[in-house]
Amino acid sequence: MKTIASLALAAAASALALPAAAQFAKPEDAVKYRQSALTVMGTHFSRIGAMANGRVPFDPKAALENAQVVHDVARLPWAGFGPGTDKISAKAKPEIWTEQAKFKDHADKLVAESAKLLAAAKTQNLDTLKASFGATAGTCKACHDAFRGN
Amino acid sequence: MKTIASLALAAAASALALPAAAQFAKPEDAVKYRQSALTVMGTHFSRIGAMANGRVPFDPKAALENAQVVHDVARLPWAGFGPGTDKISAKAKPEIWTEQAKFKDHADKLVAESAKLLAAAKTQNLDTLKASFGATAGTCKACHDAFRGN
Repeated sequence: MKTIASLALAAAASALALPAAAQFAKPEDAVKYRQSALTVMGTHFSRIGAMANGRVPFDPKAALENAQVVHDVARLPWAGFGPGTDKISAKAKPEIWTEQAKFKDHADKLVAESAKLLAAAKTQNLDTLKASFGATAGTCKACHDAFRGN
Repeated sequence: MKTIASLALAAAASALALPAAAQFAKPEDAVKYRQSALTVMGTHFSRIGAMANGRVPFDPKAALENAQVVHDVARLPWAGFGPGTDKISAKAKPEIWTEQAKFKDHADKLVAESAKLLAAAKTQNLDTLKASFGATAGTCKACHDAFRGN
């Protein structure tokens, strides 16, 4: 029974993992994809940060455009952290794969905050945007602290 | 007068170029950004292609998700082709910067086709999706033929 239970568990885990893994022909493609999505998201998020931190003047239209991209892309990178992609990038800590529920929780928090950031940008109010930028940046930092090496 | 006219023209050209250039701290950042956006877009577009070409079964939900990403990202890469970014990537032909109106026209066509692709995916009809995939792929190829080296 123990063996059957183990096999069933392995099969279930495999079924869960399959869709993400099957999306990429090679693990290297998955790594390139996730890094690309994070680059695009980070580029636009940092532009909101520049406004939130007063380094550039607040431009409500630009803030909204950038928040839209952050929101559009926030759900994407995580599919690139599938099985077999753990030995390629030194920055990705092994804990991503040994603590998958925690990793997913971090990703989900970013996705949720990115929706709030988009709503905040739509208000065209700088203080509202600043607060939401801070909350969103907090989800980036928490995940990086736990799962990103140097 | 000729000097003043030249200066005015240079100032106007500079003002036009400034927004895109000012978005990136370094030309290398712009190149990394545009390559990243193209990687994300290409990844999702090729998944629609796999369905359109019969290599994987047609999954209307997945097709729609992929078309949404293609549409979301299609407008992004072009800001990364700003002034000073022409000497970094060997793949980007000099004509991008000497024939900017033509380059922009190609980009605009992709953006327009990506909207049609999203609409086609929403119909959940494979033949409609195939036709729109072909039209969109045509805009990719036309631009690559004109502006991408090897």
